[in-house]
Amino acid sequence: MTSSNVTAATRFIEVGRQRYAYRRFGDGPGLPLLCLQHFTGTLDNWDPAVADPLARGREIVLFENAGIGRSTGTVPTTVAGMAQHAFAFLDALKIDRCDVLGYSLGGMIAQQMALDRPTVFRRMMLVGTAPRGGEDIMHLEKPTLQVPLTDPTLRGYAVLGKIFFTPTESSQAAAGAFIERLMERAQDREPASGPAVAQAQIAAFREWESYTGERFGALTAIRQPTLVVNGVQDEMIPVRNSYWLSENLANAVLLTYPDSGHGSLFQFHESFTRQATEFLASKSAAAPY
Amino acid sequence: MTSSNVTAATRFIEVGRQRYAYRRFGDGPGLPLLCLQHFTGTLDNWDPAVADPLARGREIVLFENAGIGRSTGTVPTTVAGMAQHAFAFLDALKIDRCDVLGYSLGGMIAQQMALDRPTVFRRMMLVGTAPRGGEDIMHLEKPTLQVPLTDPTLRGYAVLGKIFFTPTESSQAAAGAFIERLMERAQDREPASGPAVAQAQIAAFREWESYTGERFGALTAIRQPTLVVNGVQDEMIPVRNSYWLSENLANAVLLTYPDSGHGSLFQFHESFTRQATEFLASKSAAAPY
Repeated sequence: MTSSNVTAATRFIEVGRQRYAYRRFGDGPGLPLLCLQHFTGTLDNWDPAVADPLARGREIVLFENAGIGRSTGTVPTTVAGMAQHAFAFLDALKIDRCDVLGYSLGGMIAQQMALDRPTVFRRMMLVGTAPRGGEDIMHLEKPTLQVPLTDPTLRGYAVLGKIFFTPTESSQAAAGAFIERLMERAQDREPASGPAVAQAQIAAFREWESYTGERFGALTAIRQPTLVVNGVQDEMIPVRNSYWLSENLANAVLLTYPDSGHGSLFQFHESFTRQATEFLASKSAAAPY
Repeated sequence: MTSSNVTAATRFIEVGRQRYAYRRFGDGPGLPLLCLQHFTGTLDNWDPAVADPLARGREIVLFENAGIGRSTGTVPTTVAGMAQHAFAFLDALKIDRCDVLGYSLGGMIAQQMALDRPTVFRRMMLVGTAPRGGEDIMHLEKPTLQVPLTDPTLRGYAVLGKIFFTPTESSQAAAGAFIERLMERAQDREPASGPAVAQAQIAAFREWESYTGERFGALTAIRQPTLVVNGVQDEMIPVRNSYWLSENLANAVLLTYPDSGHGSLFQFHESFTRQATEFLASKSAAAPY
């Protein structure tokens, strides 16, 4: 059983003096699916309940960007810099075309990559993310985020259970199940991100909030069929950013989930993986599936 | 072949001195699906590409409200009045529990019915509609609507091709196919709605835009799993009304379509009927499917 993020070996590939950690597992008729991770997340933060079902129809490639986990180098302070690392990684693996699941920060990197190299992606999934020029992106100083982030009784993944989920009983139950799944992987784990990673990524969010020219104008250049997903109670990257994505991308379906926040894909993993599988299986030039 | 809105006979049922026209066809394991129609629409305005696939898994019941087509009586000037007619109709058919597809005006009636009698619906689909207190609901005086509505070169269904779809080549091609499908029904057609119908329904929209107390507060009383659908370019009932629905209903998934307006379900009928079928097939107490 290697088609699971609980057991898949972490691999390494070198590009010049840079080493990238990654995992690659699953098979099927689909194009490879590149998975780009959230703020401070490592390879270990890919919920097996999301990654494993997707790996049943295609190879999935979990990428650890520079300066995260066992990838060497420095975390870039711009999304554009992170996109350059992702290209170096794909080129080293000789993947010139794939699908992409960009979650949170990873969704911004995916948008940047689609602009920089329009042929790289066939279909895109942008979950819990924002366009350039979006608002209220990861303002950890907000009380709704600062309280759980500085709560001394919350350690490790318990913080994610608060900031990725809502306070309702149902969402908190889903949070508990999510945390248990993340802890299933017992060996070959990545080192957790420290404050330097967070600081550089926050700088990238601030830069991503800025824009010149027409707001959201760059999105018109992204023509890929796209599935935009978010929870309606997301406090980390509020859902209005997903509305802007779906309104300004030429070819995007929007799916939002109730009773859920930034981690809606983990909370509703059965629905999300079913929807994602159907979206990725479509051969249409249009996003609706 | 009676499981099609092209050929299904129009039936009639009487409640006191009121007669309702309706069509009822299809079969399968699902609960009956009550279909509530849009502004000025008759039974003939149900696109067979939407109605027929849904009738393959359940009986669908197309309802003609009072004063429309061959239903007798006067068109109520409030959504609440229209909901009372729908209850009288369901009671006469001895349907005490069903699913509902409420489109546009029909989506408002569905919400009112769920508030008035919470047990009547198991699952709800609200397409191209708005909550009480919504904005910019069917303001036909807006230039974007007034121009096609008063264009002397547009007759009959050609007007729908402009106001239900967007000006893009792809959306206008979908409009042409939609109009052809509506014209497939050759016999037993309903008389088209006149100005008196429109005037009364517009009054109902104006009343629906008003609210007292907390805006959207009444939505919290609707607990049914709900699927909210709209096109991001809807000029008749803009998509922000669908955002408000999905944000304020406790248990609603939102699905939006690109490149489409008020008639997104007709433009993307293959996707819509697949999504609707999966949504209705779910036995979950939660909306995600």
